[in-house]
Amino acid sequence: MKIEKLTNAISLQRSVEQANENHLAIVREVIEQVKKNGDEALFTYTEKWDGAKLSSLEVTKEEMEEAFASFDPQLIEDLEEAATNIRAFHLQQARQNIDFPLAKNSYIRYKISPLDAVGLYVPGGTAAYPSSVLMNAIPAIVAGVKRVVIASPPSKDGKLPASVLVAARIAGVTEIYKVGGAQAIAALAYGTETIKAVDKITGPGNSFVALAKREVFGKVAIDMIAGPSEIAVLADETAYADEVASDLLAQAEHDRFACSVLVTTSQKLAEQVSEEVEKQLKQLPREEIARASIENFGCIYIAESLDKAVAAINELAPEHLEIMTEHAEAVCKKITHAGAIFIGRFSSEPVGDYFAGTNHVLPTNSTARFSSGLCVDDFVKKTSIVYYSEEMWQEQYPKIARLARLEQLEGHARSVESRNWDKGDLN
Amino acid sequence: MKIEKLTNAISLQRSVEQANENHLAIVREVIEQVKKNGDEALFTYTEKWDGAKLSSLEVTKEEMEEAFASFDPQLIEDLEEAATNIRAFHLQQARQNIDFPLAKNSYIRYKISPLDAVGLYVPGGTAAYPSSVLMNAIPAIVAGVKRVVIASPPSKDGKLPASVLVAARIAGVTEIYKVGGAQAIAALAYGTETIKAVDKITGPGNSFVALAKREVFGKVAIDMIAGPSEIAVLADETAYADEVASDLLAQAEHDRFACSVLVTTSQKLAEQVSEEVEKQLKQLPREEIARASIENFGCIYIAESLDKAVAAINELAPEHLEIMTEHAEAVCKKITHAGAIFIGRFSSEPVGDYFAGTNHVLPTNSTARFSSGLCVDDFVKKTSIVYYSEEMWQEQYPKIARLARLEQLEGHARSVESRNWDKGDLN
Repeated sequence: MKIEKLTNAISLQRSVEQANENHLAIVREVIEQVKKNGDEALFTYTEKWDGAKLSSLEVTKEEMEEAFASFDPQLIEDLEEAATNIRAFHLQQARQNIDFPLAKNSYIRYKISPLDAVGLYVPGGTAAYPSSVLMNAIPAIVAGVKRVVIASPPSKDGKLPASVLVAARIAGVTEIYKVGGAQAIAALAYGTETIKAVDKITGPGNSFVALAKREVFGKVAIDMIAGPSEIAVLADETAYADEVASDLLAQAEHDRFACSVLVTTSQKLAEQVSEEVEKQLKQLPREEIARASIENFGCIYIAESLDKAVAAINELAPEHLEIMTEHAEAVCKKITHAGAIFIGRFSSEPVGDYFAGTNHVLPTNSTARFSSGLCVDDFVKKTSIVYYSEEMWQEQYPKIARLARLEQLEGHARSVESRNWDKGDLN
Repeated sequence: MKIEKLTNAISLQRSVEQANENHLAIVREVIEQVKKNGDEALFTYTEKWDGAKLSSLEVTKEEMEEAFASFDPQLIEDLEEAATNIRAFHLQQARQNIDFPLAKNSYIRYKISPLDAVGLYVPGGTAAYPSSVLMNAIPAIVAGVKRVVIASPPSKDGKLPASVLVAARIAGVTEIYKVGGAQAIAALAYGTETIKAVDKITGPGNSFVALAKREVFGKVAIDMIAGPSEIAVLADETAYADEVASDLLAQAEHDRFACSVLVTTSQKLAEQVSEEVEKQLKQLPREEIARASIENFGCIYIAESLDKAVAAINELAPEHLEIMTEHAEAVCKKITHAGAIFIGRFSSEPVGDYFAGTNHVLPTNSTARFSSGLCVDDFVKKTSIVYYSEEMWQEQYPKIARLARLEQLEGHARSVESRNWDKGDLN
């Protein structure tokens, strides 16, 4: 793994994927077909692209039972414990309505209410990610969303992976559809005979899914369109090279565009980590992917001082940050921008990816400067309610009318003044 | 104003504006020029499009003093009182960090921190909207954003409206630039010699501004791209027709695409309001705009029952909703989707537009189903921090490793397992 002196800002050096015009045309056609032909279009596309000839879209109770019966009980227990942790932490994020009394028996109420219905896209293909099911579904359920739906492409035999079904039920989702790609997004946004439309769609997906989410944005809400995953490790001479290397590789194995950087004040650690990465790479099942990521986007930066290292990290605003230095908690206080922070050698990133209770859906590509990981807030909306009593209105309306006229909005002034006329009782 | 029976869902019937390809090309060119030539490009565009030949971009202290000196002291007082109300209510929205202890001296911390820097776009042209300055700037300042910047196009004499400067200072904003259009958005997103880049851009603008915000989205955060304004009034036979009419017209005077609807259970009120609208229209300074809005997008719907009226309102999810019925508070409890709700005849919409303390930047076009008005949350980000002690790690790592292997991410499993080796002291 290459070593550089930290001089300027750390660049992720990844070119943003260009929207593929050809893909976009396909996605738009798919959305139109689903709007026009509903379920029929879903069956057609599922046969065409997933190779599965389905007789019905929804996962049955029997299929769910079968998934549980076939699943390692130890893993069910692990997933349940992870879900319990995630639920417990996300419950802390839940908010109360605000009742704000004004003078003269008037008030403002700020009502926090859950969205009605949310759709969670779960990618198919080679790997199944039950942890993503938990991370997306639990915040929605904690927020109070009544209807949480999963859509995921079936394999050729018309089934969904047992791990996805098990995680879904553990999270509390029972409405699950076997449909993927742009057609799933279209169905969730516009509805079909079988799949009622939702208000928001979350979850990762391939480029067709991402394009479809962009297309339906406005009709429904969407979560962020996440870029490739990143980790920055901030370490000094107290860190263990083999541990740092294993954490860099855990990120790199995600995909070829993943980015792992180490920023360290120790030349010695830099050299050791570089060697360790090479050693561990050779033993990694996903060596090819991880190697491409490390070679293209990985880098070890040697910083002159911890302060310069911290400044570079803040400039980078990485999705994940591990701090393995002396006084790591004090260093953490200096970090202003990161999606999630892991303190000390016993809190490696997988602790948060799977288990501690925090969310693993996090802002990538330096957007941690201004955005946040998935959370309960993403599944609620806030409504302000204003009540002015007659006495309050009597006292305040001249000011309101003056401010309206300052903006040359005479109709606004008249609206607030119109209450002034003594009209007597109507009846 | 036309009257219809409420049968199906209320449609806003407004075609979404198509992105103008020609405008987009201009906007992209402007952004490139500002990235390349910085301030020089800003001066050039400001002379070309605003007709103002500036010697410097920033509003000076002298200009600010002059604005205050020339301004009606009564209006300064009104704006200050409005700002006090807005600040007081938004302070209620501010949130605390969450400290969530885990077993074995471990913990999760959820850190809520303000964005570093925010840019507020204030449109120029014929009308100046000091209320929008307050509504955008105050939530950012309450959130703790250290640097709040305003950009607004100057008039030909190189000045900004006194009302905008006065409102800015009352809100607490002192860094104000005389630049508008796509060039202002580009400068806020990418920075120039004079204008340092910000992390988020909020505020309304014309189609060039909206297109530019879309283009820079990702580099910085943006607020919603708002559509034309809307009001729905829900009223029964206890409402006063002249008041309802004046409220419908207050919305209609905003612009030709504004939408005002009344949903009522009373045929009599419907007829009276229709007449009143015509009568009041003739007396309105902005009659032409309001008439276009009422004729094209206004409608009075007669509902068979209050429940059906409520259902139609919830389906519509209007930006603003006024409830003028018997037991209005009870009716309000049945409303699930609206940007802001105003209860009773003494709480007409301008109360919230200017003064009560709630925000007037609200979700349009039925997006109140899943989104919220501008608030303190829009100016903070949330970072999760995880600390696992050695004892906690010892207990939990086998579960984490199993979950990683379930997802075929061996590198993740090894990362969390790598702490297991007894390495002794490093030094």
